[in-house]
Amino acid sequence: MTRPFDLIGFDADDTLWHNEILYRAALERLIALMAPYASEKTVRATLDSVEHRNMRTLGYGIKAFVLSMIETAIEVSNGQVNGREIQEIMAAGKQMLPEKMLLLDGVEPTLADLARTYPLVLITKGDLIDQEAKVVRSGLAEYFSAVEIVSEKDEAAYRRILARHQVAPERFFMAGNSLKSDIAPVLRIGGSAVLVPYEHTWAAEMAVDPVSEPGRFFEVESLRQLPELLAQIANNRG
Amino acid sequence: MTRPFDLIGFDADDTLWHNEILYRAALERLIALMAPYASEKTVRATLDSVEHRNMRTLGYGIKAFVLSMIETAIEVSNGQVNGREIQEIMAAGKQMLPEKMLLLDGVEPTLADLARTYPLVLITKGDLIDQEAKVVRSGLAEYFSAVEIVSEKDEAAYRRILARHQVAPERFFMAGNSLKSDIAPVLRIGGSAVLVPYEHTWAAEMAVDPVSEPGRFFEVESLRQLPELLAQIANNRG
Repeated sequence: MTRPFDLIGFDADDTLWHNEILYRAALERLIALMAPYASEKTVRATLDSVEHRNMRTLGYGIKAFVLSMIETAIEVSNGQVNGREIQEIMAAGKQMLPEKMLLLDGVEPTLADLARTYPLVLITKGDLIDQEAKVVRSGLAEYFSAVEIVSEKDEAAYRRILARHQVAPERFFMAGNSLKSDIAPVLRIGGSAVLVPYEHTWAAEMAVDPVSEPGRFFEVESLRQLPELLAQIANNRG
Repeated sequence: MTRPFDLIGFDADDTLWHNEILYRAALERLIALMAPYASEKTVRATLDSVEHRNMRTLGYGIKAFVLSMIETAIEVSNGQVNGREIQEIMAAGKQMLPEKMLLLDGVEPTLADLARTYPLVLITKGDLIDQEAKVVRSGLAEYFSAVEIVSEKDEAAYRRILARHQVAPERFFMAGNSLKSDIAPVLRIGGSAVLVPYEHTWAAEMAVDPVSEPGRFFEVESLRQLPELLAQIANNRG
């Protein structure tokens, strides 16, 4: 059986390891700390608008999030927040950088299996230092022939990565939890992709049209199903 | 006259544009804000130790620096710092992300000149989003055929970049203000390099042995002198 692809890409956060739950836990802590000053609803709404305002200058990632949490605390408390409370917010932020990543179901055996047949590449958006550290702390580094960290996961970024690896789009297969970042741009350049939905998916990530690309777009419940899906694709292509 | 190199690398911060003066200005503001709580000496020493402690998790860059400034304010004020003061520190931090980079002497005409003969690549350490934004705001993007952002400027990083560009080390020439990051690792892998000292150089950057590599290591006062230096090297190599 010939392999249907020459390169498999994997998203990282919430595809290989839990990420969003770390943000949720920090946000819960912020809401609790701000209870003397503002309602949960106000804290959530203020953080959303602060993050949106800071996106262009601070970008994504944990450090940007912690700075936005501190700014939110100042705003909702009308400057009344004290040093101890800010310190608690910083501490909650630092807990978002765990010593070991919490891997999602079936990730390790699946990567070990696929890495025997395919070169695997990790393709992730965000802060270079955060993401490199996470790869190390995940214990998955050995399965990847390359780690590509980009500032935006758009068609141009995928084209650059494929050019660098000398792989044609139709020989590329991407796995991830975001229709917007992992699936749509890959399908648009002619690649194939599988959605592995994360249980808690951001509203913004869902704001794309449903996909219909028979034979190039797939969906599985868990990464565990990936080897079987690839075998089916190989059979269908004969 | 044949060109003596096939690729020229440039460091970014404090080689192409001012960077350290932005950190100095923010630090001065922090010292002024903390005057009710602690001496300048205490603030400086505390920030140094906080930055050192945070380096592994937060890495380099403006966001890490702002978080370390806030942590320093909490520490030197024994938690007494108030929301307004933290807000001022955040504001000082945001001023470190200027709308337009302040270019160093002669940078623009020199790059324009060299880009006619050589492919130029920007090689910089730090936060991916910060650095990409700076390249855009510098107005210099058009002169570079690639921008390489790495988490550490060591021998392995330079080897990877040269492999990607298919250039042998002896055909690579690097320009930068840091002996430790821009010069020493390039010389060690067999490349050539020129030091363009920045007026205010970090103590940590100077903590490397003086270099002696006749014919491969050079020093100029300003990037303006680079085209002439390259012409001389070409002549000497005959």
